Amino acid sequence: MIRLSGSNFIAGNTSNESSIYYNSSNPITQEQSDIRFFEATKKEINRSVSSAMDAFQVMKELNDTFITSFLQEVSNQIHKIEDQLIEKAHWETGLPFQRLKNERIRTCKQLELFAEFLTKQYHIRTVIDTGDNTKKPFKPDIRKMLIPIGPVLVFPASNFPFAFGVCGGDTASAWAAKCPVIVKTHPLHPQTSELFAHAVFRAVTKSDMPNGCFSMIHARNLSSIKALITHPHIEAIGFTGSQFAGRNIFDIANTRIRPIPVYAEMGSINPVFITKKALKEKEEAIAKNLADSITLGVGQFCTKPGIICVPKGCNTFIKKITNQMQTQKHGVLLSKKTQLTLRKNVTKTAETKHVSCITGGHDIKETTSFEPTLFITDYQNYLHKKNLHSEHFGPVALIITYERMDELIKIIDGLDGQLTGTIYMGAGEDEKMKSVVSTLMQKVGRIIFNGVPTGVEVCYAMQHGGPYPATTAAHTTSVGMDAIFRFLRPIAFQNMPVSLLPKVLQNKNSLQLLRVVNKELTINDIESD
Amino acid sequence: MIRLSGSNFIAGNTSNESSIYYNSSNPITQEQSDIRFFEATKKEINRSVSSAMDAFQVMKELNDTFITSFLQEVSNQIHKIEDQLIEKAHWETGLPFQRLKNERIRTCKQLELFAEFLTKQYHIRTVIDTGDNTKKPFKPDIRKMLIPIGPVLVFPASNFPFAFGVCGGDTASAWAAKCPVIVKTHPLHPQTSELFAHAVFRAVTKSDMPNGCFSMIHARNLSSIKALITHPHIEAIGFTGSQFAGRNIFDIANTRIRPIPVYAEMGSINPVFITKKALKEKEEAIAKNLADSITLGVGQFCTKPGIICVPKGCNTFIKKITNQMQTQKHGVLLSKKTQLTLRKNVTKTAETKHVSCITGGHDIKETTSFEPTLFITDYQNYLHKKNLHSEHFGPVALIITYERMDELIKIIDGLDGQLTGTIYMGAGEDEKMKSVVSTLMQKVGRIIFNGVPTGVEVCYAMQHGGPYPATTAAHTTSVGMDAIFRFLRPIAFQNMPVSLLPKVLQNKNSLQLLRVVNKELTINDIESD
Repeated sequence: MIRLSGSNFIAGNTSNESSIYYNSSNPITQEQSDIRFFEATKKEINRSVSSAMDAFQVMKELNDTFITSFLQEVSNQIHKIEDQLIEKAHWETGLPFQRLKNERIRTCKQLELFAEFLTKQYHIRTVIDTGDNTKKPFKPDIRKMLIPIGPVLVFPASNFPFAFGVCGGDTASAWAAKCPVIVKTHPLHPQTSELFAHAVFRAVTKSDMPNGCFSMIHARNLSSIKALITHPHIEAIGFTGSQFAGRNIFDIANTRIRPIPVYAEMGSINPVFITKKALKEKEEAIAKNLADSITLGVGQFCTKPGIICVPKGCNTFIKKITNQMQTQKHGVLLSKKTQLTLRKNVTKTAETKHVSCITGGHDIKETTSFEPTLFITDYQNYLHKKNLHSEHFGPVALIITYERMDELIKIIDGLDGQLTGTIYMGAGEDEKMKSVVSTLMQKVGRIIFNGVPTGVEVCYAMQHGGPYPATTAAHTTSVGMDAIFRFLRPIAFQNMPVSLLPKVLQNKNSLQLLRVVNKELTINDIESD
Repeated sequence: MIRLSGSNFIAGNTSNESSIYYNSSNPITQEQSDIRFFEATKKEINRSVSSAMDAFQVMKELNDTFITSFLQEVSNQIHKIEDQLIEKAHWETGLPFQRLKNERIRTCKQLELFAEFLTKQYHIRTVIDTGDNTKKPFKPDIRKMLIPIGPVLVFPASNFPFAFGVCGGDTASAWAAKCPVIVKTHPLHPQTSELFAHAVFRAVTKSDMPNGCFSMIHARNLSSIKALITHPHIEAIGFTGSQFAGRNIFDIANTRIRPIPVYAEMGSINPVFITKKALKEKEEAIAKNLADSITLGVGQFCTKPGIICVPKGCNTFIKKITNQMQTQKHGVLLSKKTQLTLRKNVTKTAETKHVSCITGGHDIKETTSFEPTLFITDYQNYLHKKNLHSEHFGPVALIITYERMDELIKIIDGLDGQLTGTIYMGAGEDEKMKSVVSTLMQKVGRIIFNGVPTGVEVCYAMQHGGPYPATTAAHTTSVGMDAIFRFLRPIAFQNMPVSLLPKVLQNKNSLQLLRVVNKELTINDIESD
């Protein structure tokens, strides 16, 4: 059993130089833990970044196999403390044991998939144009590859204490890119965070990584958070959370003398579009799947379906999904604050003209639970009420009735950027849905057919991102292997002497990479003159 | 001969609704042209963007072959008006005819290379993970590709009226990505710009492209420029110019409700590092090449070598480069304002303690020329004087003397982000220079060995970018084929019905693309169950 200290974890050492602290609490019992988590001082923050800088000098020169072993070792160390992790995370977040078990598996899988991805070398993207001395003017030899950018600051999410936690996707992908990571802990799960920090420290020692490749900082005061974001040696920021917090971080980062990329995933309302034919064919299943998806993790998923567009008059479907919502177990929200915000937003929706509450609508007294809630309105009303376009972070969805296909198009046109969009359609409706799909493509990062948007598969092809406000960087993903590209940038070498060329750029293609050489993809060696 | 009108060119129509105008002038004679260029009104700006939106609906569905023909046709049309283009550009910018001839060739080559690049389909980046119904939980089928982002706003550069002009690299790469373009003309070459607009209009008609794929707007007032940058339907901005203007655009874009990427290339001082051995072997050639490079285009190149680090005591080299600088012809700067700014900055440098002027240092009375100028200082002084780190936009460079290798490393550590870094070394010095190269990699987008940084080859492997303040987006390039990726973003389709899947994502790989399928690169078809 690891004994928790409440310290900051800075490059191989624990540290608590400040007298400011907070305690985490249990959302079910409202009980406070007696472990004090100490706010990092400016000195501690500077130490974490300067250690990261030092570590980067070493990391950027390491072989990929070294990083691969490290990622696997972190996964091993996490696996070893699974029981304590799940117990603490359950205490801090109220998330059920089985969910946390699955999330632990997913978190380790992410680390292992990045380890595997490195062996494939897809992340180097080598492009070579060989020179030609006979041309006038002389054509230079230019060889391009991707290199790591440097220390990355990670803000974990409240709702995924493991998969988007201290060793979540942002951290894993930054490490895979050979970038050191500084994690700012989420105040809703500092105990869980500390357990991860222990696991990482052990992996760092065992894999002989430079200590500065990882630090973990407690920072709840705006001034500490600002000090982290504006530190001159931070090169990029990964964030998962609310639009409010994400935009703030983005704005602060843009006040820097030297702005840096902010990769903020800020959730969305994940619209669902259902055709009449789809309901005819599988009404029961759709009602059940959607109700499950809306209430999964007590609705605290960034891919939770928030609006559901159904044909006017589909009363049996509405009855069925209502029944399904009513039979869902009441889960506990992540915190009292989560509940208060949700209540405020639900009340605002309930008071909106021409919106009715079908079921739910209230929090459950003396707990941090919230009733699974369904609202209903029509197409016209939705189009004109901008407040209906914001996310309810909880088990809440809004049904929108429509009459014609062109109304769906108008709804989509009026949407903000989204992580996902979902289409339920019947057999043979492909042609009919083409314009809906094409319009939806402009708004989302992922389109799901006849399934639910929750459950983001960690794989090579995953895109978890989307136009603002879903994220601040629609050209990137925070889940899946391509997440690594957030922490790499290209460099070109012109007429570099052979002995200095990185292996992946040498004429002899000893790693058997697929490279673009003189405009053509090939694994062949380059013939020297 | 095309008759110039001074109009805005909006989606196939000329338009001048405002009474505000300006005239362009000749930097050699200071003569003003009598053509009035009319500031765009808000209405005209809105019309250009809404036409772009309409055009985008068509463009995003077009076959690549269609875009390929269009790009080639634009190139043809530019070629046809070469004589008038060169004459007007010479009148407006003072750039010599031969230089403009070469730049015209380069501009057409850029368009043609993007046309060719599309045929190779490297820009789609397809990744496919096929589903598995037998797995628990069910593994979805996910297929990912890149899609265009929408209307792009382009700010051309003053110093490359063709290659970074109305039909320059930003416009070519945005079109290649199937994004409509709105160009804000540069006030130093509106006549040249209008000629390009004519060429594009002809190509649009001939290729049957939607008119809104191109508009050209005159906007000199801040309120018009702001209206363009903050227009809700602009999706990205391409810019080439000064740090001051680039950062302003970046900051304005970040005040948008929905921020968008700003790809600003803002120049740099392009440090050069020369070893003693290099001078021993090729002092004469280095002196000549560098002097030519510093004064090329009257020093108004974003890749002009701005600081040159040489071993202390290399007096013959300094004598030689000084001679070379003194024998350079005096070119005309782009404008009176360019000259005033340069004079101010040169005076500031000349007045800096421990900096001496070796040659030049003054503008040439009653012209907009400036003497080729060399300053000299030492390592210690450079490290501590931040004002010596800014760019002189003109034929000016600063020599820095150093004594030891570790001083070079410190100079590099103290540099801002750069487009390029250049190393001149002697035979057998590879090992010795490793740490210099490795440190320099953190600061630049391209490293040149034993050559000059000017002359940015347009090719697949080119990287023209670099850490801030060289650009606002170090992960991108504004020259070379990869420039297209600035205007594409990924989307994933989950369990998409076969008949809706874009061709590049279907099981049958009819285009014979190289795709990542179930983690492996392959051109094979996917076997269906």
